[in-house]
Amino acid sequence: MTFVEKVCVLGAGSTKYGKLAESIADITTQASVLAIENAGIDPKEIKASYISNVFGVADKQVHLGPVLMSRLGIPDKPSLTIESACGSGSVSFREAYANVAAGFYDCLVVTGVEKVTHTGTEWTTTYFAYCSDFFYEGQAGASFPGLFASMARAYLTEFGATEEDFARVAVKNHDNGFLNPKAHMQKKITIDDVMKSPVVASPLKLYDCCPFSDGASSVILCSEKFAKEHGGDYIEVIGSGRGGSPAALQGREQMTTIPSTKIAAADAYKMAGITAKDIDFAEVHDCFTIAEIVDTEDLGFFEKGKGVQAVREGRTNLNSDISINPSGGLKSKGHPIGATGVGQVVEVFDQLTGRAGARTVKDAKIGLTHNFGATGASCAVHIFQSV
Amino acid sequence: MTFVEKVCVLGAGSTKYGKLAESIADITTQASVLAIENAGIDPKEIKASYISNVFGVADKQVHLGPVLMSRLGIPDKPSLTIESACGSGSVSFREAYANVAAGFYDCLVVTGVEKVTHTGTEWTTTYFAYCSDFFYEGQAGASFPGLFASMARAYLTEFGATEEDFARVAVKNHDNGFLNPKAHMQKKITIDDVMKSPVVASPLKLYDCCPFSDGASSVILCSEKFAKEHGGDYIEVIGSGRGGSPAALQGREQMTTIPSTKIAAADAYKMAGITAKDIDFAEVHDCFTIAEIVDTEDLGFFEKGKGVQAVREGRTNLNSDISINPSGGLKSKGHPIGATGVGQVVEVFDQLTGRAGARTVKDAKIGLTHNFGATGASCAVHIFQSV
Repeated sequence: MTFVEKVCVLGAGSTKYGKLAESIADITTQASVLAIENAGIDPKEIKASYISNVFGVADKQVHLGPVLMSRLGIPDKPSLTIESACGSGSVSFREAYANVAAGFYDCLVVTGVEKVTHTGTEWTTTYFAYCSDFFYEGQAGASFPGLFASMARAYLTEFGATEEDFARVAVKNHDNGFLNPKAHMQKKITIDDVMKSPVVASPLKLYDCCPFSDGASSVILCSEKFAKEHGGDYIEVIGSGRGGSPAALQGREQMTTIPSTKIAAADAYKMAGITAKDIDFAEVHDCFTIAEIVDTEDLGFFEKGKGVQAVREGRTNLNSDISINPSGGLKSKGHPIGATGVGQVVEVFDQLTGRAGARTVKDAKIGLTHNFGATGASCAVHIFQSV
Repeated sequence: MTFVEKVCVLGAGSTKYGKLAESIADITTQASVLAIENAGIDPKEIKASYISNVFGVADKQVHLGPVLMSRLGIPDKPSLTIESACGSGSVSFREAYANVAAGFYDCLVVTGVEKVTHTGTEWTTTYFAYCSDFFYEGQAGASFPGLFASMARAYLTEFGATEEDFARVAVKNHDNGFLNPKAHMQKKITIDDVMKSPVVASPLKLYDCCPFSDGASSVILCSEKFAKEHGGDYIEVIGSGRGGSPAALQGREQMTTIPSTKIAAADAYKMAGITAKDIDFAEVHDCFTIAEIVDTEDLGFFEKGKGVQAVREGRTNLNSDISINPSGGLKSKGHPIGATGVGQVVEVFDQLTGRAGARTVKDAKIGLTHNFGATGASCAVHIFQSV
């Protein structure tokens, strides 16, 4: 690989995540304007937009790029939309990163968005099932709660975990999300709340699952030279990795690990010249509580099978050994699927530039984002450093 | 911009365009396998896939990348899907190009696909209208035939063209498509056929409009070093440009020109170090007959207002001054919207490597592809050279 330019995040912004009334075009624009204002740049300095979105169809607007660029007053600039299921945001970020690193563009707006809740739970579940390997999974009735339940059951069997252990992940992330004014579920819950919530797909209960959310998140990505000339706060991207797994869960050798995470993480650590031990905090893909446990093992924070013990011991709590999902994660902050990967970068930017308020990870210098699509068929990992 | 590597197309393949019975996953795989076999490479040499698709929802499969990679036996490799309405294929090609040019990957598969005809004309029209600026256009009932009819009416008024002139574009493209065994509409038509076909949106009649098509097209994109080591036929990408226009037609100063085409073409010509005069043939975005005339002017082949005269004089016919749409274009070859931009590259590859059979453009050395989204809100232009 050839990196002509160091790449930096110069500004970031998000709408609130939740059930939003505005159109997909409106929330895309809102988040982008927040990031542009936060970066303190003129929209005319933006050379292109990288949008991530999965189900524009649900709000009758695909081809979002030209709509955004027109509303920003820069209609002549190119744009595109990237989809990689629930990992769309991080893949779009990666493409934008590659273009800045290669010296093709010096300043980009990267905006992720999803607007689905108005279609109702049944349609949203149906849409999301289209992200599976539909021939083998979706059309057989295997939607994501069922697929992650299979992983959870395997984990329970293989490593002697309990359902209360999964509940602890939910409680921790709601504790963090309670401190995040933009979180969809800004409320604390107890282990008892989780255990007594309705079973969605055994052993996963309602509070083991992230909510369906609307929302948009945006960051300004630029070369180091551009960032320095603008003089505001910025952070540096020091690692970027991507990977894949067999699309259908049935094609994998093991149910308790996600191959694409390991591949993407290895690439990102190698590029950054660091190891998992150097990470101060991480935003990881906790679409279900089991996912966060598997993620923290695949990312190398804990040995395989030991992630659950770490949760039990509170080692992933805010300002403990390694703060996992200080934002509240998908579980509490919410999961507007096209926005999630970009929203993770917004959190890292806020953390490393002193904007995270009550949920600040103390003395943090290095943050990691981990975002995958479907059951981890696609994954991207990025590592950031304060400057 | 920094180009570490020269970028080449090493192989190409398409399914037939038309109403296809197979699933979107199946036709994506079919086209990709054809390109891989044509390139004579082992799938394991592919480092990532760039897919273009707009309405995966219509066939219940988004997140197509991992599905394709799994079927190719390389599930560990990363993938993504790019959407830019009807210009998705060329934008995906551009992203893949940028990644190879920057030295990030040495070999990629770029596959465009669409599978919509099974949803019927009403649903397909509805889906496509989501590609407009829906707030200003789609929801007001302005679908694409109506929007291009507005452009056509303006052109008739401004430049003294006739509806028969538009018909000549359709006749020419059907003449070319008749020679293309993969064309959706592999049949000749007459000016009288066009003039007597039902009015869709005056002045555009049925035969002024491209069909709704299913189909997939794929190319293998690689570094020059990789191409030379493999020894088969390849062509070089010498120019790449992108641009944007106000998303809604009402936001433009003129109705008879598409700003994004001019911006993208200027960039591509500059990179290639050539002018419009050097182009031997071009695959241009003729979603409606009026579009081809506007395109050939915006690309600099003819002065503004003179494109229609060129058509009248047969100067855009196969093996005349400049062969426009030797494949049959969107009009006759068909328009599976996510595949179209990649399919144009397949045609250029076939032309420049002696695989175009009866529709060969004689002594051609340089070919251009021009593909836009919606009414040209987004556009990409690429220029290729035989080696």
